[in-house]
Amino acid sequence: MAFRLNRAGRRGRRAARRIAAALAVGLALLPAAVGARELVVQSVFPAGMVFLSDSERHVAERTAAVSGGALTLNFVGSGAIVRAPELFAAVQDGRVEAAWDWIGYRAAQIPVAGVIASYPYGPSPVQLAAWLYGGGGEEILRRAYAREGLFALPCHMVVSEAGGWFLREIETVEDFKGLRMRIAGLGAQVLERLGGVPSNEPVDALYDSLAAGRLDAIEFSVPMADLSLGFDRFARYYYFPGWHQPSSVNVLMMRLDTWDSLAAQEREILTSVCRANIIWSLANGLQPQAAALDTFRAQGIEVRRFSYPVLKRLQAVSREVLADAAAKDPLVAEAVRSMTGFMTTLQRWESLQQLPP
Amino acid sequence: MAFRLNRAGRRGRRAARRIAAALAVGLALLPAAVGARELVVQSVFPAGMVFLSDSERHVAERTAAVSGGALTLNFVGSGAIVRAPELFAAVQDGRVEAAWDWIGYRAAQIPVAGVIASYPYGPSPVQLAAWLYGGGGEEILRRAYAREGLFALPCHMVVSEAGGWFLREIETVEDFKGLRMRIAGLGAQVLERLGGVPSNEPVDALYDSLAAGRLDAIEFSVPMADLSLGFDRFARYYYFPGWHQPSSVNVLMMRLDTWDSLAAQEREILTSVCRANIIWSLANGLQPQAAALDTFRAQGIEVRRFSYPVLKRLQAVSREVLADAAAKDPLVAEAVRSMTGFMTTLQRWESLQQLPP
Repeated sequence: MAFRLNRAGRRGRRAARRIAAALAVGLALLPAAVGARELVVQSVFPAGMVFLSDSERHVAERTAAVSGGALTLNFVGSGAIVRAPELFAAVQDGRVEAAWDWIGYRAAQIPVAGVIASYPYGPSPVQLAAWLYGGGGEEILRRAYAREGLFALPCHMVVSEAGGWFLREIETVEDFKGLRMRIAGLGAQVLERLGGVPSNEPVDALYDSLAAGRLDAIEFSVPMADLSLGFDRFARYYYFPGWHQPSSVNVLMMRLDTWDSLAAQEREILTSVCRANIIWSLANGLQPQAAALDTFRAQGIEVRRFSYPVLKRLQAVSREVLADAAAKDPLVAEAVRSMTGFMTTLQRWESLQQLPP
Repeated sequence: MAFRLNRAGRRGRRAARRIAAALAVGLALLPAAVGARELVVQSVFPAGMVFLSDSERHVAERTAAVSGGALTLNFVGSGAIVRAPELFAAVQDGRVEAAWDWIGYRAAQIPVAGVIASYPYGPSPVQLAAWLYGGGGEEILRRAYAREGLFALPCHMVVSEAGGWFLREIETVEDFKGLRMRIAGLGAQVLERLGGVPSNEPVDALYDSLAAGRLDAIEFSVPMADLSLGFDRFARYYYFPGWHQPSSVNVLMMRLDTWDSLAAQEREILTSVCRANIIWSLANGLQPQAAALDTFRAQGIEVRRFSYPVLKRLQAVSREVLADAAAKDPLVAEAVRSMTGFMTTLQRWESLQQLPP
């Protein structure tokens, strides 16, 4: 996998940084608390991924520094303890102490997590952050995970994804008919209702599927992450906006009884570090996307926006899909109602405050 | 002052919350570090202000909780130790240990703080946060304060202000001629170049000045804060956007040697708590503005947007004012160059990702 090429080099740098961080912590004048605690955190992502792994390291370093070395998050990559598909069950049954997870992977067990993770025509990243921390969103997420005996702490904000790589132009919604596209979450249902054929292959398989002509289109991530995946060798058209997922969130997840076993101060430290990392991920996740697009453009990729009629049709079908999801699950209904009201309020404010270009 | 009416009640609640927070901290299983440290922080704002005081309390509570009681921020209101106009000098000469400050008040001593605080046609709140933490902004601010022997930690994000209260309609830029308006920062220079007469009276005097006919217009703050100031009794028109200040930031400020005297862990705790409070202030500062506007509308206030030609003219003059400020101060020049490039990049990304309404 192209995006793991730099793995060894990154690990070396990471180790060096950990040592530096440990030394810095050692210099702290406050005495380290007795009973130092380590949580082993298996990530749902492979080690050495662009940006995503930087975020994990940042959270680990800040936790060590803020706790004066009393609390350590020991991140290990996907597969280090259990295989990726087992991660959720492994946290529930205690084989894995904690996980770093994209909440969208839990759509089957926790439907509302799937909706918040990948909300078609949903909130922008800052709107999602405002809803989580000021609009009741975090509380809804907490109740949903608690039903599975779990606790999830939002810890990384995912900016708007790309709309996807396409072998051929999308000029009308008719062009979605028969389109074989890798697309995750509720967006897949939207594509299906428009006659498309969604698939949800793992990232490892995508390059080969595109090369072998088994896929006509792929949405996977943000431009910075797509940079190293090589889809641009086959697909000439890179479409925006990422209507299927304008924002998303990764969490630090553990069993509820593990969370409760932490000291109040330890819980406060993790809460504070994770909220600070929401800002870190936003601050460092926006600018590199534009740079990545410039790289693609220089390689002859056509960066385009879906036409207005296509976007309006996708929006209408997205509303149907969301309404159906809400009808099946009361907590999804509550989240959609809450988010809709919150977004409407924020959009009114943002429109009033819009500055001319 | 209307906005201080609830002061006693708020103080009572605050004391109760502090006791509750202290009890919660006492229950922490980690032992409190020895050598507990208290910083007395005089706010530039009066105690009991809507939202602004909530933010101070939130920072104090989180600092106590994250440090397990080892570090305490003891906030006192404006005037508690020194009079508000002396605050900056008092921190420099050690009479006040730390301050909670709007960086715009320091424009005379630290020109770049004035520009970042009140940047006409500048960044949205999330763009400002991204620039501070991912675009080099925090580092520029740090160098600027260091020249005055000070350290400033961004700790509260201020959302877009209102464009102002007006006794009469603004239909063309001609209507700014002779307009006596309370307006702060670089916006005042813009108004002046358009023939207006800016003044910068303290908030206490504004109501009387408007009542006595000494002012034709006032910009002071965001709708939520304007709610209790009573300008709506005289001014019928409430204009947007807040072109003169689309975002701003409050800081925790202290002498550089005070900051350096803190243990590494204490500095990490304050850094983490303040970054988390950037999210807290954004999450809780956006939605109430729309609610406040509904209240004003119900009272017959006309909530309006400046016309496009007026906004474009204000924008052109704002660019001149910024260029002149940059020509006078190399650090302002650096900040404007950095911010301009950063905003352009982010705006390209945001335009590409724009969803239809």
